[in-house]
Amino acid sequence: MVRGRISRLSVRDVRFPTSLGGHGADAMHTDPDYSAAYVVIETDAEDGIKGCGITFTLGKGTEVVVCAVNALAHHVLNKDLKDIVGDFRGFYRQLTSDGQLRWIGPEKGVVHLATAAVLNAVWDLWAKQEGKDPRMLVSCIDFRYITDVLTEEDALEILQKGQIGKKEREKQMLAQGYPAYTTSCAWLGYSDDTLKQLCAQALKDGWTRFKVKVGADLQDDMRRCQIIRDMIGPEKTLMMDANQRWDVPEAVEWMSKLAKFKPLWIEEPTSPDDILGHATISKALVPLGIGIATGEQCHNRVIFKQLLQAKALQFLQIDSCRLGSVNENLSVLLMAKKFEIPVCPHAGGVGLCELVQHLIIFDYISVSASLENRVCEYVDHLHEHFKYPVMIQRASYMPPKDPGYSTEMKEESVKKHQYPDGEVWKKLLPAQEN
Amino acid sequence: MVRGRISRLSVRDVRFPTSLGGHGADAMHTDPDYSAAYVVIETDAEDGIKGCGITFTLGKGTEVVVCAVNALAHHVLNKDLKDIVGDFRGFYRQLTSDGQLRWIGPEKGVVHLATAAVLNAVWDLWAKQEGKDPRMLVSCIDFRYITDVLTEEDALEILQKGQIGKKEREKQMLAQGYPAYTTSCAWLGYSDDTLKQLCAQALKDGWTRFKVKVGADLQDDMRRCQIIRDMIGPEKTLMMDANQRWDVPEAVEWMSKLAKFKPLWIEEPTSPDDILGHATISKALVPLGIGIATGEQCHNRVIFKQLLQAKALQFLQIDSCRLGSVNENLSVLLMAKKFEIPVCPHAGGVGLCELVQHLIIFDYISVSASLENRVCEYVDHLHEHFKYPVMIQRASYMPPKDPGYSTEMKEESVKKHQYPDGEVWKKLLPAQEN
Repeated sequence: MVRGRISRLSVRDVRFPTSLGGHGADAMHTDPDYSAAYVVIETDAEDGIKGCGITFTLGKGTEVVVCAVNALAHHVLNKDLKDIVGDFRGFYRQLTSDGQLRWIGPEKGVVHLATAAVLNAVWDLWAKQEGKDPRMLVSCIDFRYITDVLTEEDALEILQKGQIGKKEREKQMLAQGYPAYTTSCAWLGYSDDTLKQLCAQALKDGWTRFKVKVGADLQDDMRRCQIIRDMIGPEKTLMMDANQRWDVPEAVEWMSKLAKFKPLWIEEPTSPDDILGHATISKALVPLGIGIATGEQCHNRVIFKQLLQAKALQFLQIDSCRLGSVNENLSVLLMAKKFEIPVCPHAGGVGLCELVQHLIIFDYISVSASLENRVCEYVDHLHEHFKYPVMIQRASYMPPKDPGYSTEMKEESVKKHQYPDGEVWKKLLPAQEN
Repeated sequence: MVRGRISRLSVRDVRFPTSLGGHGADAMHTDPDYSAAYVVIETDAEDGIKGCGITFTLGKGTEVVVCAVNALAHHVLNKDLKDIVGDFRGFYRQLTSDGQLRWIGPEKGVVHLATAAVLNAVWDLWAKQEGKDPRMLVSCIDFRYITDVLTEEDALEILQKGQIGKKEREKQMLAQGYPAYTTSCAWLGYSDDTLKQLCAQALKDGWTRFKVKVGADLQDDMRRCQIIRDMIGPEKTLMMDANQRWDVPEAVEWMSKLAKFKPLWIEEPTSPDDILGHATISKALVPLGIGIATGEQCHNRVIFKQLLQAKALQFLQIDSCRLGSVNENLSVLLMAKKFEIPVCPHAGGVGLCELVQHLIIFDYISVSASLENRVCEYVDHLHEHFKYPVMIQRASYMPPKDPGYSTEMKEESVKKHQYPDGEVWKKLLPAQEN
């Protein structure tokens, strides 16, 4: 039973000083402090259940997202959860199409990240209360701007077909989990020694798929890719990630030189806005055996729609916090199914693994029904701050069993890392100013 | 001589309660309060010259942009103006590619609007100090992600060709001004009577090109378009603007029904992110004599690049405050020239006319060298709050003669309209709460 009126929304700026160790560094983001705008909604239902939502950020600017969450709060406050989820499509559109606020998006950047944080909290609250059925899920999707590719009827049909064999796939997931790959070994900030050591450990832990960051310096890339390929051997999977470093012709040229290391994909070769650019790169690299992956900075379903239409990618990477929560991610999963393009989610960051495991396991059980060419990113990082952290076994995500969207952080962690007044930052900030 | 170190940056949230009169209402933005994040930078040069920059907003959310301006301020503070403009491309990239902050964009939405406000202030300051030459202009452009369409060499070549006949075009502009059209007659919020009255007055004032808002209700659109076409006659120009209301098939269907009113263009038929959608609509409507116009919510040069590549528009509408100031607008003017697509800027709002007149007159004098199919939007609105307001004569923008980017607002107006503490809002807010 859905219950409660939302009586309180709080949002906090939580930052982890990850840049100190070079963790998470890539060709464009050289010093990220993995952070989150962390939203908690409470109700008057007296059951003590809270909804927790996050969106991931890289440090600076989290305060801007916090400000945007506050600008959206009035849409949520004093609403009955029943009314929200009873017309979730309408509620989604309220958030994304506010007549004044949409100007500073629309459906992109800061306001859309804030929308995700708020809606993730609503989904967490709702999921802690009860389960969902396909028709209910379709009613959460805003089909505006995508009906030329996916209508409500198409969506229902896909989900109905997804019912076939669902029980077996559930069992399979519970037994084996969803296949993952690791990004933890080869950040750009790591020395060759660190890289080798982490790679050896990952192999020992049973990992068979590895991602390496590239794009800053070609000679450096050649050396690092050689090290990894030598360590993992010719059979295991290697992915590469340029984090938008290149222009279109540059991407083709650079990757032609890295082709000999047999990457499964090159991720984010250029601007996430450049659909036609990705199509051009794809045309050039697919014959070399390299697929194009992108999505972590694709700001909404309209961009994904076009990437699919233009045959611009071979692997689609949803993000649980950049798209407008489950609502918008559902529409992208369904479009990917229609085009038969595998979804391989972006994760890592703060809490992204926790959230996205729900989406990708749902995708397998109820939408794609296939594991072919599918794999979910994993980064071994910051999970200790979550109340219901992901569980990885034999390089696979084991299905979460706790109620909710796994978004809840430990209060102690939040307090300690609040910016700028938490204990961690109180110590760090004066030191950094010197 | 470029001079001064930037010693202070202030930003204020300035809102005009335009929603009270239904001014500015369209199919998606039903109650806009025309607003701006207003930036002032000061230097230690003791000449008293300030740089003023704005970005336009619709009311709510302006505080989020203000927050983002503050997040960017450290890039500007304590910098010598000489160093900024001496490597303006590098400075631009500092603002747009900050390793932590770019995550919440990149180059889109709130952070990009804030970037525009800050850079507009820098341009105002610089322009108040001295003139520019072509090579200097090219050095301001960040060519990242557009070299597949426009290289630095292409840009220089276009600008060098633009020198031919420049003196004559300057004279022509000074004598006749740049042709404009009016959007002031036909907002969706206006009654038929208001529409007729404003239209009659505009005809009397010499206007020959009129824009009408459409997209909320087909029957209503038919009636209003009929009224206007009857009043202006078959020869004068009518444009239509749907403000992103439709899905792709819907846009084609709806406009097929409005084709009999002979619109020159349909503006923003669908999502500003949907390049392929605009291409589909364009293919269907151009044979009916209707061009596609879009751009006011296209968030950066990468989107414009693709709209041009995909032949998705016949009229390109730059925005002086959504793109990253003069720097990014230059790149779009040059790409449009390369594809021979006319630029017809978006204006109106708060200060957009003041800023964009500089860009479009520059476009004519130094880039396009043509007025064919070209016209700049004008809305008769809020100019009284600017220190150097636009001057319209015979339905044309007369070239601005004061130094700077015409961005400076009257201090009195700013104080009165500051949100939420200015006089106007102190009166309005308690009234709205009742």
